[in-house]
Amino acid sequence: MTKPLNIAIAGLGTVGSGVARLLTGNAAIIAARGGRRLALRAVLERDRKRERGVDLSKLKWHDNLRGLASDPTIDVVVELIGGSDGVALDLARAALSSGKHVVTANKAMLAHHGNELARLAAKNNVSLAFEAAVAGGIPILKALREGLAANRIERIYGILNGTCNYILTQMRDSGRDFGEVLKEAQKLGYAEADPSFDIDGIDTAHKLAILAAVAFGGPVDFKSVHVEGIRHVSALDIEFAEELGFRIKLLGLARPTAQGIESRVHACLVPRNAPIAHVEGVFNAVVVEGDFVGRVMLEGRGAGAEPTASAVVADLIDIAHGRASIGLTPSTAKPKAAPMARHTGSYYVRLMVVDRPGVIAEIAGALRDEKVSMEQMIQRGRKPGEAVPVVLTTHDTVEDSMRRALGRIARLKTVREKPRMIRVETL
Amino acid sequence: MTKPLNIAIAGLGTVGSGVARLLTGNAAIIAARGGRRLALRAVLERDRKRERGVDLSKLKWHDNLRGLASDPTIDVVVELIGGSDGVALDLARAALSSGKHVVTANKAMLAHHGNELARLAAKNNVSLAFEAAVAGGIPILKALREGLAANRIERIYGILNGTCNYILTQMRDSGRDFGEVLKEAQKLGYAEADPSFDIDGIDTAHKLAILAAVAFGGPVDFKSVHVEGIRHVSALDIEFAEELGFRIKLLGLARPTAQGIESRVHACLVPRNAPIAHVEGVFNAVVVEGDFVGRVMLEGRGAGAEPTASAVVADLIDIAHGRASIGLTPSTAKPKAAPMARHTGSYYVRLMVVDRPGVIAEIAGALRDEKVSMEQMIQRGRKPGEAVPVVLTTHDTVEDSMRRALGRIARLKTVREKPRMIRVETL
Repeated sequence: MTKPLNIAIAGLGTVGSGVARLLTGNAAIIAARGGRRLALRAVLERDRKRERGVDLSKLKWHDNLRGLASDPTIDVVVELIGGSDGVALDLARAALSSGKHVVTANKAMLAHHGNELARLAAKNNVSLAFEAAVAGGIPILKALREGLAANRIERIYGILNGTCNYILTQMRDSGRDFGEVLKEAQKLGYAEADPSFDIDGIDTAHKLAILAAVAFGGPVDFKSVHVEGIRHVSALDIEFAEELGFRIKLLGLARPTAQGIESRVHACLVPRNAPIAHVEGVFNAVVVEGDFVGRVMLEGRGAGAEPTASAVVADLIDIAHGRASIGLTPSTAKPKAAPMARHTGSYYVRLMVVDRPGVIAEIAGALRDEKVSMEQMIQRGRKPGEAVPVVLTTHDTVEDSMRRALGRIARLKTVREKPRMIRVETL
Repeated sequence: MTKPLNIAIAGLGTVGSGVARLLTGNAAIIAARGGRRLALRAVLERDRKRERGVDLSKLKWHDNLRGLASDPTIDVVVELIGGSDGVALDLARAALSSGKHVVTANKAMLAHHGNELARLAAKNNVSLAFEAAVAGGIPILKALREGLAANRIERIYGILNGTCNYILTQMRDSGRDFGEVLKEAQKLGYAEADPSFDIDGIDTAHKLAILAAVAFGGPVDFKSVHVEGIRHVSALDIEFAEELGFRIKLLGLARPTAQGIESRVHACLVPRNAPIAHVEGVFNAVVVEGDFVGRVMLEGRGAGAEPTASAVVADLIDIAHGRASIGLTPSTAKPKAAPMARHTGSYYVRLMVVDRPGVIAEIAGALRDEKVSMEQMIQRGRKPGEAVPVVLTTHDTVEDSMRRALGRIARLKTVREKPRMIRVETL
């Protein structure tokens, strides 16, 4: 048998421990699939005492990244420290530079430094693999690069953050508002104490930037992603969406346009009969639209020790097999991004207006002045002189015009709150 | 650049023409992904005149399989003739024996002769690839072999036949009965003139046998698949299923048990909140349950020229890249199958009984005598002296006992039709 693939794990948190357990527990299956033994030899971690559900006493324990990066007995470094910069980035650079393959689940690092790391990997003729960085256990990057490789990808979109999907699912099921459900999610461990990374869409944007780079073969372009979160989604919007035949999901979407790649993260109204509308709770899903294959959806667990470990070890098996590569195009090409102002689509708008004659005419006038064409309007309830919700959807509209129309509407005296806007997606 | 991969297509029907169009239309993308040019050089096909949407005039036209199999300019033969035996099998054998890689979409051939062909490929050190044979454009075999390779697969199941799923979806949407919907599907080209291959579950069983072999790493064991179709599913059953919170789908399911691999194809009641319950119309889906990744579902088009071509060319790209292998274990191991008689699960049973006192007691007695424990029973309508439907579901029951209980029930004088039984799946 060929010599084993010698592996070091940097960072023994939840995921790192999961990878160690998987490499140990399924060693025979993994060796059969990889064509040789995958041997965990070393770790980089300070805390030796924590119980991790697997015996790590025989491993070499490194306590600084230089030591690990220059350890000649190691073939692959699995970076599971996290954070876009700092130790994780230093280690990835050092490991690649000393000719070691790097496997990582670190989406933040790849979103910010993926292009540099890909060039470093190419220069040193080693692999940079990161299936676990996007949608956890779902083998979406392999599907894009290999299983669907013959297709021109026309659009890719997904539910890439389990915390947001859990919150939106709970809001719909219980009719409760965002703040209350967030608190509960924090108690249950589905949301962090500081949840902004998730609920403001940043985590989804990291993943989308990587996904788009792989799907369209360009550089990672995190800075061009238009990012919104879900804080503004209210129970009332979810209720109106249902009434109109939609569900609300936080999606990351990317597609090539004549102006460049359009990539955006925001809450969307998705038709209730779209497959992605049925992806619930902490599950993630990615939909790929290819010119030959049509629509393909992959759904599964996007986070957690064990699904993430599944993706990390799949990368290790590819490396053992000699079929891994650099997951990103190691080019210095300037990314070309389509501006969000030119995005065209349909919009859902909810206003709280004073219930009195002439209000609707004012709103309709503001829309007309910006050439926004209304598709439908619902006024709910009657409370003369008080604020009532008015909901409208538009025909295809350019983002710019919609923004100006919303500005006009916000300035109307009869409109009592900031207008709420959610984009409607045709899926 | 490396020398091109030289390809011949055998069979220029719908799928063959699709592969030719894809290789031509997306040549640049495909070359980039494959690391070299994928050049279509030859075809095996008698009919030169049909319009196929692509210029094939410069290709070499073979008119017999020996000529193609021994053509020294060809690296890969793409077998798209179809049929489990005959020309397709002769060609696959001849091509592998002369050291050519074989890519095929032929599930019937693989179900019957996959083990032999895998051994032949291993002996000649060439690839045998067949992503297109299971679930069309969905890259499920790659996901099993590579993306989810670190997992012990605990169960795999799927909607593998678009014709059946279309018919069942239409029946539910329209409330019409099987025969009527089948006729319409035939008119629309979604079902063959002789539909038995699809609606009797044989096509699903072919695919399941391949899927199970890949998932569990054993030989293809088509003979051990328990196969039922959907002819017996009535509009009434679909209505009752909805009432109970289920949908009816034709699934292929396989899992390892203490007795061996249990693999079965039959109509199932699936919970309405299971992701696979929302796979509608001609779409296919496969769910993989791995010990680390948990539940992963892949959904997409399971048939048609273009999705199938997408899968065929993905295999060709793998071969071009040098990362393809033999999709099956080329062993001579005897398959070990679990007998259907030992299957344990819950059952839905519909009876047409004479509406008169004591009937339910007789049925309950028959179940008790075979130790089948009832979960619930619904009697619909009241027509004293006439036949009315009675529906019941059971707690976990061994297939054998259920069969004997159904035999007893069928012999009751008050039971007017053959009892209908549909298995209930916990998904």
